[in-house]
Amino acid sequence: MKSIKQLREKKNTAILLIHCPDKQGILATVTEFLNKNNGNIIYLDQYVDRVEKIFYMRVEWELEGFDIPADKIEEYFDTLIASKLEMDYSIHFSKQIPRMAIFVSKMSHCLFDILSRYTAGEWDVEIPMIISNHMDLESVAKRFDIDFHYIPVTSENKAEQEAKEIELLKQHEVDFIVLARYMQVLSADFVDQFPNKIINIHHSFLPAFAGAKPYHAAHQRGVKIIGATSHYVTSELDGGPIIEQDVTRCSHIDTVPRLVRKGRDLEKIVLSHAVFKHIQRKILVYKNKTVVFN
Amino acid sequence: MKSIKQLREKKNTAILLIHCPDKQGILATVTEFLNKNNGNIIYLDQYVDRVEKIFYMRVEWELEGFDIPADKIEEYFDTLIASKLEMDYSIHFSKQIPRMAIFVSKMSHCLFDILSRYTAGEWDVEIPMIISNHMDLESVAKRFDIDFHYIPVTSENKAEQEAKEIELLKQHEVDFIVLARYMQVLSADFVDQFPNKIINIHHSFLPAFAGAKPYHAAHQRGVKIIGATSHYVTSELDGGPIIEQDVTRCSHIDTVPRLVRKGRDLEKIVLSHAVFKHIQRKILVYKNKTVVFN
Amino acid sequence: MKSIKQLREKKNTAILLIHCPDKQGILATVTEFLNKNNGNIIYLDQYVDRVEKIFYMRVEWELEGFDIPADKIEEYFDTLIASKLEMDYSIHFSKQIPRMAIFVSKMSHCLFDILSRYTAGEWDVEIPMIISNHMDLESVAKRFDIDFHYIPVTSENKAEQEAKEIELLKQHEVDFIVLARYMQVLSADFVDQFPNKIINIHHSFLPAFAGAKPYHAAHQRGVKIIGATSHYVTSELDGGPIIEQDVTRCSHIDTVPRLVRKGRDLEKIVLSHAVFKHIQRKILVYKNKTVVFN
Amino acid sequence: MKSIKQLREKKNTAILLIHCPDKQGILATVTEFLNKNNGNIIYLDQYVDRVEKIFYMRVEWELEGFDIPADKIEEYFDTLIASKLEMDYSIHFSKQIPRMAIFVSKMSHCLFDILSRYTAGEWDVEIPMIISNHMDLESVAKRFDIDFHYIPVTSENKAEQEAKEIELLKQHEVDFIVLARYMQVLSADFVDQFPNKIINIHHSFLPAFAGAKPYHAAHQRGVKIIGATSHYVTSELDGGPIIEQDVTRCSHIDTVPRLVRKGRDLEKIVLSHAVFKHIQRKILVYKNKTVVFN
Repeated sequence: MKSIKQLREKKNTAILLIHCPDKQGILATVTEFLNKNNGNIIYLDQYVDRVEKIFYMRVEWELEGFDIPADKIEEYFDTLIASKLEMDYSIHFSKQIPRMAIFVSKMSHCLFDILSRYTAGEWDVEIPMIISNHMDLESVAKRFDIDFHYIPVTSENKAEQEAKEIELLKQHEVDFIVLARYMQVLSADFVDQFPNKIINIHHSFLPAFAGAKPYHAAHQRGVKIIGATSHYVTSELDGGPIIEQDVTRCSHIDTVPRLVRKGRDLEKIVLSHAVFKHIQRKILVYKNKTVVFN
Repeated sequence: MKSIKQLREKKNTAILLIHCPDKQGILATVTEFLNKNNGNIIYLDQYVDRVEKIFYMRVEWELEGFDIPADKIEEYFDTLIASKLEMDYSIHFSKQIPRMAIFVSKMSHCLFDILSRYTAGEWDVEIPMIISNHMDLESVAKRFDIDFHYIPVTSENKAEQEAKEIELLKQHEVDFIVLARYMQVLSADFVDQFPNKIINIHHSFLPAFAGAKPYHAAHQRGVKIIGATSHYVTSELDGGPIIEQDVTRCSHIDTVPRLVRKGRDLEKIVLSHAVFKHIQRKILVYKNKTVVFN
Repeated sequence: MKSIKQLREKKNTAILLIHCPDKQGILATVTEFLNKNNGNIIYLDQYVDRVEKIFYMRVEWELEGFDIPADKIEEYFDTLIASKLEMDYSIHFSKQIPRMAIFVSKMSHCLFDILSRYTAGEWDVEIPMIISNHMDLESVAKRFDIDFHYIPVTSENKAEQEAKEIELLKQHEVDFIVLARYMQVLSADFVDQFPNKIINIHHSFLPAFAGAKPYHAAHQRGVKIIGATSHYVTSELDGGPIIEQDVTRCSHIDTVPRLVRKGRDLEKIVLSHAVFKHIQRKILVYKNKTVVFN
Repeated sequence: MKSIKQLREKKNTAILLIHCPDKQGILATVTEFLNKNNGNIIYLDQYVDRVEKIFYMRVEWELEGFDIPADKIEEYFDTLIASKLEMDYSIHFSKQIPRMAIFVSKMSHCLFDILSRYTAGEWDVEIPMIISNHMDLESVAKRFDIDFHYIPVTSENKAEQEAKEIELLKQHEVDFIVLARYMQVLSADFVDQFPNKIINIHHSFLPAFAGAKPYHAAHQRGVKIIGATSHYVTSELDGGPIIEQDVTRCSHIDTVPRLVRKGRDLEKIVLSHAVFKHIQRKILVYKNKTVVFN
């Protein structure tokens, strides 16, 4: 299903993400570097963690008119600035559309929400493939014209099936993975190949109710609010850096099926917001926590 | 697109909605009527407006084992109870699946949300048709296998086109209409034929910013929270009984396009919640206000 | 400090709280009992847990004109209805103003919020005493003209000091206790004497971050939302039935001191809401969960 | 009532607030100025309105070690930077504790909230006086040891009484005024003397329900959410720049008195948050809108 909306003309920009030990003058140094080379800044956000003494920054500027050619920016920035200030950094270009794979199982709400936004042209992303361990959602993939790969996983065949998945992801040059209620735990080996590149949605307000059946656990505990949490996947189950959370009220009248229904809306919106932040390169990860810029 | 999920086995129930002048004993009278005739109540909610002295009630009971045949319930209830207590009431049956038409223009987010829930089997509803004054969303309708009727409306042809729409709605035995960001004001004549049966989504926290371009108005005013409102359509523009509202925070950094983007998520969730309440017959309307049961 | 506002004329009412095994006709039976004896119902709320098959009800009616004398209601209700239907119930009268003790340590925000509402006449409650294990808040108590009892507790003198506290509570005929950021764990013996009569505020969204230093733990985990939880105290630390919860957004910029500051507003509002529900006798407890009526 | 808590040792800092036409290099210029003169920045936030092309900034740095003496900073900054870049700016010092007057009428909840925070040492502010057009809250002022001035205002004596108020405010060197549910409209003359220095709380989600009796209007309209709005006072009633808003859910069961009760908690928290932002000098006003930094 092609986009139903003409995509807006994209600005040709570069995006620089930085974190490094905080020192006097980093912000001035970086903005001067851009200004002196005629880089018109269209977005700048920075944050200093004054406890850990870490400086974080996201700056985006127009490539048109910038004195340094796009393919030389990294080299120049590294030599002139980054190496001197011990910076961890990455440079991205608005013309590089990230490629995302979706992993699903049987539940469709997150998948529908992602594909609807994709089709409506809300996101600058390509979705070359959906991978699933069940056939249930093949018809959805088909209607949205996305390749659907059925790769059932059992405890016996996990290593082999994950190898097949990784092969597919490489073939399709996938940049990051979204687990849209994928009900399989990925192996540590798999996760290690995609650091801060696998986004999961967990159907609770983490760290409460990590693991299986969180709505049952929430009902059992009698909480008055339920939530959903989107996070990067690490080898620790439901323990990775949290990107986004949201909650909704519940009460004694909410049975488990009612919680499940309320939760679906939270899950899809929270996951989509996290994915959108990732696509925009607005997330920095440090020590199992995220800095998410506006 | 057929439902991707086996629909749950539906209970065979009757639903009674009542409002009437408050008096002692109404609740006892109604519940006794059901109990004595072996009606197993599975849901009961009531509310008394003690200022206006109005009693509201929604009760649902199983038809299996109920002594009065389904097609006689209305007659018996009317004779034995309703007429004596000056009740305004309606009786519905879970086996009657309501039929809903969707009116759209160019924006797809509410339509996608509705069709996703429909396809996922979340709602007990039939959607026989989509009507639009633009062709833009035909491809969406097609992918979900819903009939799409293109009925462009201008100030000149409005009466005639609305007549065509009403004809179609009757043919398809449509029970209620959802305006999923339909950017045409319906005539008073049209609205009068569907009292409390047209659900609209307005992209502001009504009564603030009624009328056109609410996000521009919100930005102009510098509000710190934006909202969306779903309401029944009456002949007063954006003035009908409010069913559901929700809000989200914004700040000085939110330009109009950012407000529009944030607002889309509010709009689709608020509209879908309102539609779901309507499908479940949980809404009573009285004096331009709603009683919405849980 | 006397109330600064003339208290409204209180209606002379009785309140009946019930939970019992669900059966056909309970609601009709109870409302008939009140109607036949000329009890004018001014509030009725009921809820059936259809999974556990438990019926819950709160009904309030005017004593003026009621055929059964106030001091005979319990006997009549027990004989005619409750004993037949295996009801757990309690009867309260609006003229009985509950008496509440406040336990505090060093933090003043919850105490100020409670005393402000009390002084403003928002609550129908008496506060004969404040107990504290520190002297810090004595001046606050004094300014609001409430007796302040300094009872420092150590692991060595705990049993003895709690005995002193219980003695005081009995002397002052205290009905329930509010722990307004009281930083001492009460012994199981103490707790057992006040079942569902001790209300605590925990400064996290339970069950996340139970125990000490929840804001530090929340910061460490990098959550995007923090919360507060009010619950009845049981012998399990932070494990009692939850009455009320609320949350607020946070982000990477929120250091621990900022979380503490944001949390204070949550804590005081959540605790005061829970206390108000308790004062109104709108809470039923069953199996470590609450039913909280509106 | 003296502060019950030892105030934390305050850092000796300067705060610079700027807005000016956006140009390349402003951020670099300002941060360089501070860095070169050994100003250790402890907070920096900036925002560019790319539609209006306005640059906004708040920067705070330590005075200890800064090369320019505190009393020369303004001169140097003006000469070297501000005048060249057409900046609107102000410089503040953490050692200058702002002085605030509170205006009240009969309702105590906002006053209690402010005085509680003040007494608890939450805010770096002095409160030399409370002015009221009613005697009701004198006892509250007395208990917190704040001077209370009773200045009743009628349509006849307004000009004269406001002159008296202004005289008092000057005598006490008051920097800004908080209208804590003060039920009198200030004259345009009065307002003009305190531009962006009078903070009001309005008991609705503005611009909905401006003017008198907003809870009645909200109830009448049947909204599902109510709100409160804190704003700077301008000569347009309830039309000044919005600082902070918050909302809470309501439903058909909420009578006007229930809305009033729910609203009180919103009002006091929203007002106190706005006041706190003002005290921290985190608010910039431009074209009837605010930029509120975190």
